[in-house]
Amino acid sequence: MKTYNVAVLGATGLVGGEMIKILEEKNFPVKSLRLFATSRSAGVVMKALGQDITVEDIQTADLTGIEAALFAGGEIASEDFAGRFVDAGAVVVDNSAAFRMKPEVPLVVPEVNPEDLRKHNGIIANPNCSTIQMVVALKPIYDKAGIERVVVSTYQSVSGTGKAAVEELNEQSKAALENKEIKGNVYPHQIAFNLLPHIGSFQDNGYSSEELKMTFETRKILGDDSIRLSATTVRVPVVTSHSEAVNVETKTKITAGEVRELLSTFPGVTLMDDPKNNIYPYPVLAAHKDDVFVGRIREDISCDKGIEMFVVSDNLRKGAALNAVQILEKMIEMELI
Amino acid sequence: MKTYNVAVLGATGLVGGEMIKILEEKNFPVKSLRLFATSRSAGVVMKALGQDITVEDIQTADLTGIEAALFAGGEIASEDFAGRFVDAGAVVVDNSAAFRMKPEVPLVVPEVNPEDLRKHNGIIANPNCSTIQMVVALKPIYDKAGIERVVVSTYQSVSGTGKAAVEELNEQSKAALENKEIKGNVYPHQIAFNLLPHIGSFQDNGYSSEELKMTFETRKILGDDSIRLSATTVRVPVVTSHSEAVNVETKTKITAGEVRELLSTFPGVTLMDDPKNNIYPYPVLAAHKDDVFVGRIREDISCDKGIEMFVVSDNLRKGAALNAVQILEKMIEMELI
Repeated sequence: MKTYNVAVLGATGLVGGEMIKILEEKNFPVKSLRLFATSRSAGVVMKALGQDITVEDIQTADLTGIEAALFAGGEIASEDFAGRFVDAGAVVVDNSAAFRMKPEVPLVVPEVNPEDLRKHNGIIANPNCSTIQMVVALKPIYDKAGIERVVVSTYQSVSGTGKAAVEELNEQSKAALENKEIKGNVYPHQIAFNLLPHIGSFQDNGYSSEELKMTFETRKILGDDSIRLSATTVRVPVVTSHSEAVNVETKTKITAGEVRELLSTFPGVTLMDDPKNNIYPYPVLAAHKDDVFVGRIREDISCDKGIEMFVVSDNLRKGAALNAVQILEKMIEMELI
Repeated sequence: MKTYNVAVLGATGLVGGEMIKILEEKNFPVKSLRLFATSRSAGVVMKALGQDITVEDIQTADLTGIEAALFAGGEIASEDFAGRFVDAGAVVVDNSAAFRMKPEVPLVVPEVNPEDLRKHNGIIANPNCSTIQMVVALKPIYDKAGIERVVVSTYQSVSGTGKAAVEELNEQSKAALENKEIKGNVYPHQIAFNLLPHIGSFQDNGYSSEELKMTFETRKILGDDSIRLSATTVRVPVVTSHSEAVNVETKTKITAGEVRELLSTFPGVTLMDDPKNNIYPYPVLAAHKDDVFVGRIREDISCDKGIEMFVVSDNLRKGAALNAVQILEKMIEMELI
């Protein structure tokens, strides 16, 4: 079997760490693994694939020979360094928003639009966490009944913000339980025992950047610009896994039973839908697992052709690192690398 | 000024305690205050209105002379005892779901449908917490532009479940922070650093009782059975205040600016809508306050005539105890008691 020279950029972050873990878990065909970060984290020695690997400074590294690079260093790092990796002959799977909406860059969820990978020019964009899990659940509905409109509200965990946010939630929670002063600098307001309808930056139309990502990325991944989607994205005091209340208006009638049947065989989905027996998805259940968990499926009583469902997945895994590694696996399967 | 013989049933619970506090804060014209609970809590001495009041056993008490009773003892207590209070000549404002959908019982939010109080036959129902705060925000929109359809997702705090739930959230949060085993018996699954799309009991159509309350109570309060509404209700690890992402499709076009203007002068509403400066409502901000806080108001990009907004209020106050006391105040103002 062919093996690959693989690189992870942003190796010391939450998503980068998860990428390394997933390469190990999936026995990804790694010939060599190189880890990169900014000069601030360079020199750190990390355990990966049974080896001690020294994190290299991305500014000064020679990239010769790298064939596949997983980027989790944030938007600025992606913009600064993706070109150099591509010039060195690597395929870059980028977890940031830097290239997602560029027409020449495929935006891919392997279960949903793998064929888009064929159009790549060296960079493949990994969609936003909140988009990935939603489109996995929407895809079989879209194929069967079409989608007119989606109204979605999210419940997003703090690990989506990064390590400092997880720390802030823990510290503030401790302080609150001990009636001590709540301090913080990651979020603009307290996050412990609270929630904030604020993810990303606010645009002139009143939506946040995170909310608009869900609209535009969904259209691109499903390849249908006629889909109308309005999102409200909310940060909640949960460590791992994003949850979403998804209201879908379809073009033709589809029953809750049909949706259950479609999702029960769709790759990457675990159906958990027996609410009378307390079986439905929730964050701690989905944490550290690969699948997108879907439940609370019901026909919308406010709409003739509508479905309500609750969609939960680990935002660091399917929402980020796992999807990125799956993109590489799919490219190998399709003989694109 | 006329004063009244007032009773609180369920005085030892979270909502009952809040009712007593609000009677004090508002200088409600109390002639005498009697507190009732089941035999389990009877005999407890509570501080109220500067007095020590012994909680009486509701089973055996003589109710003669009571003119206004606030009920916060739950559905079964309401069904069992409301008749006796009415027979004794009292007006009952009931916080449970027992009478809300009975045609002969007014379901009232004083800012929204005070005239319905005139139709009372001794019992007035206080709407569900999640409905009250939503209809306050919907009312001026309804009056100006009509409402076709609402899609709402809630983020409801544990105090809505009661004291034991607040305790469970605190205990589980401590345990989680110390990596200890998570135990619980109030919710079917962990609530600390988690959330559950489960409030109330599940019906055959897949909706929970809490979700259907929002549909049917909204229609009754706004007096319009043509309103279509689909809710997803979710319990979140927050102590106080419910939040709601409310998507409204109106009959005629209304702009975000018009909604802001209407809400800025609507009684009981505080507009907090400057997201670029981190000004929007969130639970710890609304806790222990009277108003319904509304922000994140924007024109829905998925719909020609749609408004998105985020609505937060203290579920024990406006969502329960405050609204109940305001009903009594309104009845005094309208000379109904």
